[in-house]
Parts: sequence; structure tokens; C-alpha cells
Amino acid sequence: MTTLYPDDSYTLHTDAYQINMIQTYFEEGIADKKAVFEVFFRDMPFHNGYAVYAGLEHVVHYIQNLHFSQTDIAYLREAEDYSDDFLDYLANFKFTGSIRSAVEGELVYAHEPILQVEGPLADCQLVETAILNILNYQTLVATKAARIRSVAGDDALMEFGTRRAQEFDAAIWGTRAAYIGGFNATSNVRAGKLFGIPISGTHAHALVQTYGDDYSAFKAYAETHRDCVFLVDTYDTLRSGVPNAIKVAQEMGDKINFQGVRIDSGDMAYLSKRVRQKLDEAGFPNAKIFASNDLDEKTIQSLKMQDAKIDVWGIGTKLITAFDQPALGAVYKMVSIEDNHGQMQPTIKLSNNAEKVTTPGKKQVWRITKKTDGKTEGDYVALSSEDPRNYESLFMFHPSYTYINKTVTDFNARPLLQSIFEDGQLVYKLPALSAVRDRARGALANLWPEYKRDLNPQKYPVDLSQACWDQKMEIIKQIHSYVQKMPE
Amino acid sequence: MTTLYPDDSYTLHTDAYQINMIQTYFEEGIADKKAVFEVFFRDMPFHNGYAVYAGLEHVVHYIQNLHFSQTDIAYLREAEDYSDDFLDYLANFKFTGSIRSAVEGELVYAHEPILQVEGPLADCQLVETAILNILNYQTLVATKAARIRSVAGDDALMEFGTRRAQEFDAAIWGTRAAYIGGFNATSNVRAGKLFGIPISGTHAHALVQTYGDDYSAFKAYAETHRDCVFLVDTYDTLRSGVPNAIKVAQEMGDKINFQGVRIDSGDMAYLSKRVRQKLDEAGFPNAKIFASNDLDEKTIQSLKMQDAKIDVWGIGTKLITAFDQPALGAVYKMVSIEDNHGQMQPTIKLSNNAEKVTTPGKKQVWRITKKTDGKTEGDYVALSSEDPRNYESLFMFHPSYTYINKTVTDFNARPLLQSIFEDGQLVYKLPALSAVRDRARGALANLWPEYKRDLNPQKYPVDLSQACWDQKMEIIKQIHSYVQKMPE
Repeated sequence: MTTLYPDDSYTLHTDAYQINMIQTYFEEGIADKKAVFEVFFRDMPFHNGYAVYAGLEHVVHYIQNLHFSQTDIAYLREAEDYSDDFLDYLANFKFTGSIRSAVEGELVYAHEPILQVEGPLADCQLVETAILNILNYQTLVATKAARIRSVAGDDALMEFGTRRAQEFDAAIWGTRAAYIGGFNATSNVRAGKLFGIPISGTHAHALVQTYGDDYSAFKAYAETHRDCVFLVDTYDTLRSGVPNAIKVAQEMGDKINFQGVRIDSGDMAYLSKRVRQKLDEAGFPNAKIFASNDLDEKTIQSLKMQDAKIDVWGIGTKLITAFDQPALGAVYKMVSIEDNHGQMQPTIKLSNNAEKVTTPGKKQVWRITKKTDGKTEGDYVALSSEDPRNYESLFMFHPSYTYINKTVTDFNARPLLQSIFEDGQLVYKLPALSAVRDRARGALANLWPEYKRDLNPQKYPVDLSQACWDQKMEIIKQIHSYVQKMPE
Repeated sequence: MTTLYPDDSYTLHTDAYQINMIQTYFEEGIADKKAVFEVFFRDMPFHNGYAVYAGLEHVVHYIQNLHFSQTDIAYLREAEDYSDDFLDYLANFKFTGSIRSAVEGELVYAHEPILQVEGPLADCQLVETAILNILNYQTLVATKAARIRSVAGDDALMEFGTRRAQEFDAAIWGTRAAYIGGFNATSNVRAGKLFGIPISGTHAHALVQTYGDDYSAFKAYAETHRDCVFLVDTYDTLRSGVPNAIKVAQEMGDKINFQGVRIDSGDMAYLSKRVRQKLDEAGFPNAKIFASNDLDEKTIQSLKMQDAKIDVWGIGTKLITAFDQPALGAVYKMVSIEDNHGQMQPTIKLSNNAEKVTTPGKKQVWRITKKTDGKTEGDYVALSSEDPRNYESLFMFHPSYTYINKTVTDFNARPLLQSIFEDGQLVYKLPALSAVRDRARGALANLWPEYKRDLNPQKYPVDLSQACWDQKMEIIKQIHSYVQKMPE
């Protein structure tokens, strides 16, 4: 966004309490104490069977540009009661932490760490808010896009949502996430420029209104463009829009590439069949029918059940805002903290709600697949000191209902969290967006269909290692005994 | 956002079809034809009785910075099949249109123009997408915030949503919209810097985890800050959090400003009453109870019905994403276009859905109030050539059910759309944010309570002038006769 500050930075894009906590750490001389924080979410978005991880590229940009600018410091000096020493500390702040993360396009699940920050307490604290802001939105939209892709088969999917997105950044990063989730193109030209996503779009109702009738408008467009998709519902789809589109296509012949027509209102099932018939009869069996009008995976499914003749889907509002669940609730919790003897100690956040209790300790997620067919068996969340590749067999049990369990043999274990920053230095090469998109597609191909159906999917196993589980139980016991000594 | 392009601009933040249409206009020599487009929405957000208009400041920034940069042109040259002439035209493009708009903080309603762009066809077309992107989101959040304010009474309301916002811009502009709608403060430090919104926030669970127990954490915080709100639910709210908060407050005495405690989980009704009792008994009747945990107007209302003792509400996800309706469906439609004789002609977009038919002609919205008490009678949408201030009495009728009508006398009429840009020049002085917030509060004070209740409000009248209605009917008749001559 445009601002009054030439040196504007996103370093203040954080919650005030982060800086207040850092002040305490600084004044108490523990700002450099080592800590580990992990990002995870508790519920699958849209009750989907998987989530498509997205957002890491923006996280990398954010971390690389992290520094308090002069006007940032000037603002803090004026707004808060901070000491000069603390403001000097901030002015010289450099991020020196390490970040491990799933890579974009990877499938991720509830209750497993998807990103991990390890480093000085102050560094870990500062970046929480922006990291969640990024990952929550982009993972949500990539997942929504994958759901839509799953019902659309091989049909082309166009992201058309900019005008309904929640401000500029959502439009841009949302369409990138949609592309990762399986969309083919976007209407947003800037997203095309920034990310190389194919752009798509021909004309709106205004063109027809400008010329006053469908024929003149389509003709003018055809005379100035090679690729033509005519929007046919400005006045009357069947009586005026489609007949005039056909007329112009016939007149122009090879001079244009008549890709088809777009319908933006009315009964899509009925209209698309009538339009298909008209196009076929006119000798345009390859002309496609584009549809756009508040579509999502439910309406696409319904239209396909009705045998609607739609080839290309333009998806706006429902995708770019993740309309049926516009927020993913990923959180960022401390799992380990250096004690006064320089030892890392696992730590927990308790809660009255059982599912809100965190799992202590620095962890790694291992994706377990059968050697025989490459299909996923589940995820195994272990302490970072463990390496299940050394195990002959893996005892996998449900992290709450521990009596639900299985022993897996003949497996491959692949670590999900990869090194992105080490001690403040970027050590990861951001892949091309097409590679990210391919990764998502490949990962979905290796997932059992039971996890992929859009309604009531089977729950994908995310299990804790025995060591991880034992440690969690031990810490809960310790805290209970500490708390229960106090009067209520 | 960070980009690879030093000259990155938001001019390409538009739909591809806009530029494709502009190409047609340019090649056909009509890019400078005059047109008028109007923004309106069809349904009240959240079924609310009013909407709080927000977004104009960002629209002004966007328009002021509108120009195709070198890399924008380079991208278009590579991505699309545009002629050099057309690319030169874009490279030299300057916005020369006029924009009229409601001002921020004003109440607006469905089916009335809230922003109007008049100017060369190309200029009008280019800006549609970004204007809608901005207004749709900001008006939505300002309205949601006003709904929450309406149930919160005079309680302090804190915007805590950044981590769940749909990317960076939504967090920033969303919290500004929340402030306009009646919130008191934000947790987002950058929003404080950019907009002067008060910032708020003390510490998170991580502080307690760092120190290992509530007492040590609170004490450390108190020794390094004057204003203290202690978060009490890391381990156990009643047994550990609150007693230790009280202990630290007693030990520190006048050295700190003990503002209160924050509860972030558990049964808020029960806990807040128990916490209130403990604080009162300990001699801190003025210490406030802060609550934050997926709150919105419904949960606040429920907690108040249960006599929960909460003084300050931290609102995150549900506000910043407008969770129960994450998109406002404002559209941007051509209402008038210059004909070949240089005359402006009203134009319409028909549709099978009756409520989607637009109202032709360049218009003004008049807010009608009774001279006697200043209360609003309704809005009167008239052609721009009309001035109801010249009328003795006003015949106001429902735009669909015309037999529902009334005659108003002794009224004041105030034009809603004000001049913002004239021929590309900014002629409007952006007011201070506090003035915008005051305007919203004042406007709500003059609205009958029947329109303000959060459930099933009375529908606010938005009526068409007789001239406006007659013109619409005449144009529909013309098009019907044109369309019906064609075979189906």
C-alpha cells in the first residue's frame, strides 16, 4: 500500500504485545535466550481431508526485509514509553533465527507443526503475527482451490475474484495460492506480472453497453483481438448474445480465434445446454462455454450432476475469500525454552479445552509411506532427536484415543520440515511457482481417495511418537501438581 | 508487498478484461468517449439495517498513483499481443476522470450509488477492479465493527485480528475500518503508525512460558512496564493466573498502573464472575477484565445476557474477516455513455434476475431528513439534473413495490455524493480519521433505532425519483422490443 513514509517497513506489522514482551526480555537481559516456536492448526479447513500448504514465499520476503526503519523507531518513541536503550536495540535488530518449514504445495494436516522458528526469544516473538497472517490466508485459499479442482476434473479454472478480495494483498497472494491449488489462470494482471501466472479475460457488459448492442460490440472486439470470448448475457443470452456471437464468429472466420462465449447470470444448467446446442448447430463444436456467477465446488458439482455444458469455470468471491470459512486458525506456540543453565526445556500451554493443550518439545514431522505403493500411511510427529528411518517398525497411535493404533513396517519416512533460514541466512532456494503447483498435484496423486472426497473425508492419521507422548504426559503431570497445590 | 520490481505500481491491479476493452476502445478511436459508471451493492451486509462507508482514502491513494510503470509496460508487451501504439498510449496514460463519492463514515444503503466515476471510457474501465476491491472490504468491516459496537455499549473494543486477516493489507485497512465503525484501539503497530490509531497489547502466553510460572512472568513484566494487563490463563486462571496477578499488583503498588487481567479461554461467563470477585476482594475494584476468544456481536450479547463481568473486548477473526459474510457484493455498472453526437445517453444492464437490472442515468443520492427533528426519512435517488431542494414536497415510493409510498414535506435534502476528483485533480481534502469516526457515530445517532437493531431491522427506504423511474421503464421497454424481435 501507499504510505506517507518513504522508509515504510513491515517490521511493525506485528501485535503490540510482541514488542512489549521483547522490551521485558531486553530489560531483563534474556532477549537472546534460545526458544523454539511452532505453527500448527487444530481443525482442517472446510472439514477437508487435507490442506495445501502455501505462503512460504511471502514469509521469506518478509523475513529478508525485517528491520526497524527510522520512522518505525520514531513512531515507537512517540507512541510508547520505551527507553532509549531499548529503541537503540530495536534500531540495530537483525533476525538471526532459524526457520524450518514444510515447502509450498506440500499437503499438511491439523495438529502437526508446519513451520518452526528457533532462535533468540526476541526474534521468535517479533515474527509470530506476520507469519500467521500470511500462512493462515494462503493455505486456506490453496486448500479451497484444491477442493474446487477436485470436482472440476480437467476443466479449466479461472480465478476472477480480485474485486471481492479482502483488499489488495489478498487478491495478489490469493490468486497465487489458487494457482498452487490447481487453478489455470487469473484475471489479475499484476499477479501475472509478479508471479508469471497466465492471465485471462476478454470483455465485460460495459463493452456491449458502450456499443449499444451485442453485434457491434463483439464485432469491434473481434477486429481488435485475436482471442475472443464473447459475454452474451448483457441483454438476452439466447435471443441476442449467442446469435450475435455466432454471427461475428462466422463473419470473422480465421481472422479470430473464437474461443467461445461466457454466461454470467441466469440458470446456468438450462442456458449452457441451449447455448451448446446453438454453437454446435452453427458449426462451432470446439467453442467453449465459460461460466461465472458466484460459483464454488458445490455449484460446480450440482451443475455437473445436471449435465450442464460448461467447459471453463470463472471463480470469484467464494474462492478468494474462502467464503464458507474465511479464516484458518493456525497458531504459533512456544514448545521449548532455554533454562538458566543453557539447556533447552520443553514447555506447554495448558487449557481447559483438551484439544488446545500444546505438544511440548522441538519436533519434526515424518511423512510415512509404504515402500510397496508409495501411498501415505500417515504423519508421525516425533521429537527432533528421533529419526524413524532408524526404526524397523513404527508404532503409530492416535494422539488422544491411544487405543487406536497400528504398527507399520516396510515404510519410508520423509521429514516434512525443511531448513529455510539458518541463523538468519536464507538457505532455501525458492522454487518456481510451476514446481510448487506440480508438487501439490503429485502429493494429491499419492493420497488415498478416502482422504480426498469433499464430503466427510476419512481423517488422515497424525500421530505422536512414544517419546513425544511420554514427555507431554510428564509435563502435564508436573504442572497439575504445581497448580493443584494452590487454593482455588 | 515486496516485489522484484523497483517501479512496481498498482496500475496492473485490475482485471485483464479491462485492458483488453481499453485496447478495443483505443483501436476504434473511442477511448476518450465520455462515460459514467456507478458503484452500488444489492444486499445489506449481515442483513444489517445500514452500512458504514469506508475505503475512500485508499481509493484516493490508488487514483493519485495511477500510471503504468516501465516494467508494467514491459510485462504487457511480453504477455499480450498488444500493438506498440497501444502500449505507448498506456505508457502515457493519465487519469483525467472525475470521481464523486459518499464520504467515509457516512451511512449507505443497498441500491444507491455510493461512488461515481465520470470521464473517458478508458479511465472509467481501468479503475473498476481496484475500487471495488477496496470499497467492498473496508465497508464490510466498518459495518461489522458498528454492529459489534452496537451491542458493546460503551465498553472498550480492541481489534486483535491481524494474525487471522486475509494477508497484510486486510489487517491494516481492516483495522482502520474497524476504528471508523467504533473500535477504540488495535494491536497492529503499523496501523498505529500509519493511521494514528491507538495501539494496545501487553503480553502473550509465551511470556509466562519463558519464565515458567505466572508470578515470575507478571513480576518481570511489571518491572519493565508501567501499564499492566496480565494474561491469566496459561496454566489455570483461578488457581494460578489471577492470584499471581493480584500478588504482583499488591507488591508493585503505585509503581505500576494495574489495568486488569485478560482471559483468553474457558467459560467466559463463569470465569469473569469469579475473577471479578477475586479482584474486588483483593481491593482492585477498578481493575478491568479483558476477554478475547473468537468473540463477535453474538457472543458479546450472550455474555452480557449472562451478566458476565467483562469490561474490554478483544475482537479478532470474526471482525477482520467479516466471518459470517466475508464479501460485500458491490458492483460497478455503466449508467451513461456518450453517443456519436456527443450527447450522454442513459444505459442499462438487463438480467433475468429482476433485482440485477441496473438503474440508468447519472444520479445523485439525497438524504432526506425531517426539519423538525433531524431524523432520516430515507434516501431519494434522483437524476443528476434534479434538485429536490427545489421541491415543496417529495413523493417517495418503493422502487419495486411502487404502491408503497409516502409524501414528505418540511424536509431537508442533503446530497450524498461529493466531488473527490475533478478531471483527474484531487479536489477533496481527506479528513482526519477521528473526524471520520465521529461522522459515523453522529450519523448513527440520527438513525431511528428500528434500522439499527442487529436482528431483523426495518428496511431503510431507498427510493427512486419519478424521473429516474420513468427513464428506467422507458429504456427497459425499448430493449424488450429490440430483443423480442429476435427469434429465441
